[in-house]
Amino acid sequence: MSAESAVPSRQQPKWHLPAKKVQPTLHLQNSLTKTKTEFIPKDGRRVTWYNCGPTVYDASHMGHARTYLTMDIIRRILEDYFKYDVLFVQNITDIDDKIILRARQDYLFKNHKANTKELDLALINQVEKARKEFIDSKLAKIEGAVALATQDWNMFVKKMTPEEIAKAVVIDEKFKMYLSALQVSFDAVQKAKQALEKKDTSKQAADELLEASQFVLSLYLDKRKGNEVNDPKVFRELPAYWEDMFFKDLDALNVRAPDVQTRVSEYVPEIVTYVEKIISNGYAYAVDGSVYFDTTRYDGHHGHHYAKLEPWSKGDQALIEDGEGSLGSKLQGKKSPNDFALWKSSKPGEPEWNSPWGLGRPGWHIECSVMASAVLGENMDIHSGGIDLAFPHHDNELAQAEAYYDCGQWVNYFLHAGHLHVEGQKMSKSLKNFITIQEALQTFSARQLRLFFLRHQWDAKMDFKQSSMQETIQIETTIKNFFDNTKAIMNRIRSDGSRGADEHADGSITHRYRDAEKRLLEVLQQKQDAVHAALCDSFNTPTAMEEIMNLINETNKYMAGGAKLVNLHLLGKVAKWTTNMMKIFGVAENGAEIGFGASGQAGVSTEDVLMPYLHALSSYRDQVRSLARDQAPHKEFLDLCDRLRDTQMVDLGVALDDQDDGTALVKLVPREELIKAREKKLAFLAEKEAKKAAAAAEREKKRLERLEKGKVSPLEMFKNSEEFKTFDTNGMPTHSKDGEEITKSRKKKLQKEWDMQKKLHDEYLKEFPSK
Amino acid sequence: MSAESAVPSRQQPKWHLPAKKVQPTLHLQNSLTKTKTEFIPKDGRRVTWYNCGPTVYDASHMGHARTYLTMDIIRRILEDYFKYDVLFVQNITDIDDKIILRARQDYLFKNHKANTKELDLALINQVEKARKEFIDSKLAKIEGAVALATQDWNMFVKKMTPEEIAKAVVIDEKFKMYLSALQVSFDAVQKAKQALEKKDTSKQAADELLEASQFVLSLYLDKRKGNEVNDPKVFRELPAYWEDMFFKDLDALNVRAPDVQTRVSEYVPEIVTYVEKIISNGYAYAVDGSVYFDTTRYDGHHGHHYAKLEPWSKGDQALIEDGEGSLGSKLQGKKSPNDFALWKSSKPGEPEWNSPWGLGRPGWHIECSVMASAVLGENMDIHSGGIDLAFPHHDNELAQAEAYYDCGQWVNYFLHAGHLHVEGQKMSKSLKNFITIQEALQTFSARQLRLFFLRHQWDAKMDFKQSSMQETIQIETTIKNFFDNTKAIMNRIRSDGSRGADEHADGSITHRYRDAEKRLLEVLQQKQDAVHAALCDSFNTPTAMEEIMNLINETNKYMAGGAKLVNLHLLGKVAKWTTNMMKIFGVAENGAEIGFGASGQAGVSTEDVLMPYLHALSSYRDQVRSLARDQAPHKEFLDLCDRLRDTQMVDLGVALDDQDDGTALVKLVPREELIKAREKKLAFLAEKEAKKAAAAAEREKKRLERLEKGKVSPLEMFKNSEEFKTFDTNGMPTHSKDGEEITKSRKKKLQKEWDMQKKLHDEYLKEFPSK
Repeated sequence: MSAESAVPSRQQPKWHLPAKKVQPTLHLQNSLTKTKTEFIPKDGRRVTWYNCGPTVYDASHMGHARTYLTMDIIRRILEDYFKYDVLFVQNITDIDDKIILRARQDYLFKNHKANTKELDLALINQVEKARKEFIDSKLAKIEGAVALATQDWNMFVKKMTPEEIAKAVVIDEKFKMYLSALQVSFDAVQKAKQALEKKDTSKQAADELLEASQFVLSLYLDKRKGNEVNDPKVFRELPAYWEDMFFKDLDALNVRAPDVQTRVSEYVPEIVTYVEKIISNGYAYAVDGSVYFDTTRYDGHHGHHYAKLEPWSKGDQALIEDGEGSLGSKLQGKKSPNDFALWKSSKPGEPEWNSPWGLGRPGWHIECSVMASAVLGENMDIHSGGIDLAFPHHDNELAQAEAYYDCGQWVNYFLHAGHLHVEGQKMSKSLKNFITIQEALQTFSARQLRLFFLRHQWDAKMDFKQSSMQETIQIETTIKNFFDNTKAIMNRIRSDGSRGADEHADGSITHRYRDAEKRLLEVLQQKQDAVHAALCDSFNTPTAMEEIMNLINETNKYMAGGAKLVNLHLLGKVAKWTTNMMKIFGVAENGAEIGFGASGQAGVSTEDVLMPYLHALSSYRDQVRSLARDQAPHKEFLDLCDRLRDTQMVDLGVALDDQDDGTALVKLVPREELIKAREKKLAFLAEKEAKKAAAAAEREKKRLERLEKGKVSPLEMFKNSEEFKTFDTNGMPTHSKDGEEITKSRKKKLQKEWDMQKKLHDEYLKEFPSK
Repeated sequence: MSAESAVPSRQQPKWHLPAKKVQPTLHLQNSLTKTKTEFIPKDGRRVTWYNCGPTVYDASHMGHARTYLTMDIIRRILEDYFKYDVLFVQNITDIDDKIILRARQDYLFKNHKANTKELDLALINQVEKARKEFIDSKLAKIEGAVALATQDWNMFVKKMTPEEIAKAVVIDEKFKMYLSALQVSFDAVQKAKQALEKKDTSKQAADELLEASQFVLSLYLDKRKGNEVNDPKVFRELPAYWEDMFFKDLDALNVRAPDVQTRVSEYVPEIVTYVEKIISNGYAYAVDGSVYFDTTRYDGHHGHHYAKLEPWSKGDQALIEDGEGSLGSKLQGKKSPNDFALWKSSKPGEPEWNSPWGLGRPGWHIECSVMASAVLGENMDIHSGGIDLAFPHHDNELAQAEAYYDCGQWVNYFLHAGHLHVEGQKMSKSLKNFITIQEALQTFSARQLRLFFLRHQWDAKMDFKQSSMQETIQIETTIKNFFDNTKAIMNRIRSDGSRGADEHADGSITHRYRDAEKRLLEVLQQKQDAVHAALCDSFNTPTAMEEIMNLINETNKYMAGGAKLVNLHLLGKVAKWTTNMMKIFGVAENGAEIGFGASGQAGVSTEDVLMPYLHALSSYRDQVRSLARDQAPHKEFLDLCDRLRDTQMVDLGVALDDQDDGTALVKLVPREELIKAREKKLAFLAEKEAKKAAAAAEREKKRLERLEKGKVSPLEMFKNSEEFKTFDTNGMPTHSKDGEEITKSRKKKLQKEWDMQKKLHDEYLKEFPSK
């Protein structure tokens, strides 16, 4: 510091803390209040959440998608937008009356079919009997139906007016399905009778009759032999299969896997303990090996309320019976018709576990209370499920858990996904508008379905109809075009690999913030605020999507508009934010910076994307090699394959390890490692080559020495010697210098030397013929 | 609803809003208070941020990385963890004295070298003169150095003790660099003299001398010819080149591009207007074509404070002079030595723009005030830069903007990245411990460097040393192993494609939450809280990283531990959360669900990853085709290539469009489109085939008709006719039935018919020789 300057104050001036701007906070549509309530997780940033999982006995349909895809969207928004640490628990119900019945019936029918060797009158009579019993049991409630239907099925159907059919559907909603099943079976019986007249008793004819009558026969067989089914495997394999299918469907819809997945069959000991506690708290009682929840005792006692979600549904016997399952001995021993089973004693033909009340199995509602408690304890932030489950299932779940903990609020926020209709009507098998997830995915992509869901408020009724799917596809196209256009502009300008000099030169972009840029930035910020407000408003994704589409619209105008110059960074910011929102919604792939992502499938890793390509390349290469090896002179092909392995693939960080069987193993390996390995290999080859060259040089040296030796003709070889005086014509010595004749043994030795020299000299002459 | 149940209340019971748990809030180390202050963005979730960008005249080094990588980490945490909508503005300073000097000197030296044709005494004398001037100018401040050095350079260096050298470095920090440059040049002169003695006057010898003396010659040439350089291109191309390099380095470090990138040279008109306003507000004055900021008038006037960041540095002439640049005529016309230039008049050899004060260019500090104001206006949330810039650059920037807006707080939070040292010492070219980003990336990966940065508090001094880089690499390995292990366990169990039945069967996983799982979940939640608290504590990433490593450690114990059963979902949750934190820090690739990602490079899209592989595959295939085509019988190779294109590639969604030149275009196209195109092609081919077959059938039909016609011998052909009576030996009619001789003209016609039948019959005989 220079001497002449005044000593400055070491004190910084006062700093002003900015004022906090009031921001919208997240509110959720809470079924416990039927209003939007502020969302306050009990533990700050952590959210505990239990979502009711499926009962796995059949293919998942769009009704399931309505719940699971909806909750996935909400979960992603909580996790990725609001940045909560969510613990998402979901169960699999693999013990249930529907599962028991379906498993047993499938098993019995399969056996029956396997044991049926030919078509005969007995089989036809059996099916007719089954049909009669089916009609008696299923159509009993519908006036005149049984009397009519037992005479002639076709007549019966023809006699019913559409009004009568509609009325029948009200009485039993599956009526149309029964109609259809009975008709198919009726036709099959007629056909079987004709076959028999023609003496066709084949296994095939029998199978046709059986398959067409499966629906009615299953009931017949179960009634007679259901109680004989006692292999636990039967009751395990069916739900295991459908659980697997359920997760495959959810994967295909890009639904995140739960953090915790519980399975009822693995929680039976916990369930027994839980029920014991409810009994000891005074809210349940055991009768004949079953245990029931005491709704009368519970409601109003110790601050408890029964049916918090739908108090107006209390006592609705149809709903209660449906919740109790089809295998219960109805109301037997119940103190009140509103009481429900916590534990059911099992009859023969039903799976069973040990309990203090004898062999039995858990009731439906208790499963969820126990598993949710086991992981989340006595209070959770969110419980969710389809709206159909609100009463009695969720109300009973709440009652059980609050009875168990003797607490007042087990769940803070209860979310219910709205109904799904198809073309304006409730979806059901009987209405033939039943769409499985697999079927939906054959017509629409997972992305299109998700966009469709996003365009509907999660807790409102959603009508799945062609016309609005078409609108959604149009929206998908608009978004995709927007991404493609921004990417194209950015790539065009960047494609020369420079951001510096050539951007100046290009002249089509600007770094300045002119009015056009300021306006677009303002629109972006407005839309960000609007999307935030919409998501805070109980995840109002339809509004959020609309705001995003407006932003795209405005940005398209900016790109196309009068402004010849485009600000690349601003454009990128808009496109990246839009992409990011699409990622949060689960619509765009995680890896994409701008766009939906290349694979068209969201949530896959680079490795997943890459490996199939590399395998294709590798096996292609294998084939070329095998072809080339079969035709010897094709060395060039093999060289090409080696170069691919040693150069291009190394540069890409791909190891192709050739195996003895002619195929190569493919691995992703850091480029540097591969380069090192290649250098090592080259060094090894170079060393080998050097050794080979040294050996060759050594051989050449010896050859030259030998040639040198062979220069002298054997005729002359002894003549320079001091030892000898006279020679024969071959130059062989005859006498030594001192005149003595060469001895025989000496001569023999000399002859050997002469022969050797002759050989060397011949070689020499061959090499140098002119000498 | 059954009649006997009591009418239930439609009223839901009272619901209790959960209590809010107090959460840590984000605090930042604010240079305006030198304390951690609560972060309150003025506009809710939106954060406006201006980061001081580089002056582009040389390669970016680790000191730059310290600022830009640090700010990138903070920005990612704000955007991806705290979910703020950040508007990140960064400038490029492409007008600056350093740039002008470097550009001019490079240009002059390059010209000089090009014009030097051979080595001669004149050249040597010129270099020696340059050396003398260099010593005079650079070593003048160091006692005795000039006197010594002008006699014998080697002697001078040898005579200095290490203590003397250390003292000299204190006087001029670049002293060692001068020493080294002078030594290199001295040696080159000796060598040149020797060459000349040996009559070596080659261009090469001259170039060697020039290159070794560039440092000293640049000064010499600039002094003589600097003012002759007036091509604006010279001053544009150098910064454009280094700007490009800067962004390439930042890309390589996976630093996010700014949302708004401004360039000084594009903001000169705005700068002029801004300076005018400061003058009219009374805080600046013009002198001889330059404009200076009036610090005396400003400080204390109207609530303004000068040097808010470092009031203790006020009046530090060394810092102020450094800030003013090397081309200024120092202090000329300044009212106070503390005043600084807003606008500098340009001398010949300096780039110039029009202004009310004559031709000139902006001062350094004004650039940032103007560009930040142009985009962010009169108040911003965050301003940041390296700590070296705090005084005078940032303090002047604040003064200018607050003088312009006549406001009290232009910036709410000022963040300064800490110093970077290398092996305990300040990094500088003169200390030879200067490391460019490119050099660092040759030894370490971008991921390793980023992990190293994360392990250091952003505003503290960071020592870049081998030993702690090794620690970081160890940590990277631990994380990678953790990811690999969890993935391996999850893949092993999932690889049979089932989550249902076979999981039961596998027996190595559980869905239950036993004590082991509860403990691990607790650890995860503790670590999530700890990481959150650390990030709230002014982005304390070293603590956050430590907590994450603890979590990995605990999870490894869980995996390896006594628990034979592993809960897959919980393991996945830990690994996914860890991956997610790595993504937020910019360490892991966006697309990865678990792990760093396959490409080893974070933030790249699937398309970017994929295309190089596909191009390799495609060009490989091109080559095979070309080889196979050269050797005619190799049809099998071509078929193979077609199959690859039409089957494997179609299934992978890759279009290979064969071109006439023997290469193929590669495109990523939705699989469905390609399948449709393939089907269309196959249908087209089938149609073509069908047409061909139909034509062949037609031909065959005609051939058979012709053969049928040829059955009759020409000798017999007229004999069945009613018309004729007598025939010659060839069966030609001579007289008609009525005995009349056949006319000549008639005969001619008949002969034609006969010839035709002869031909047909010959064909018939050829087909059926036995007939």
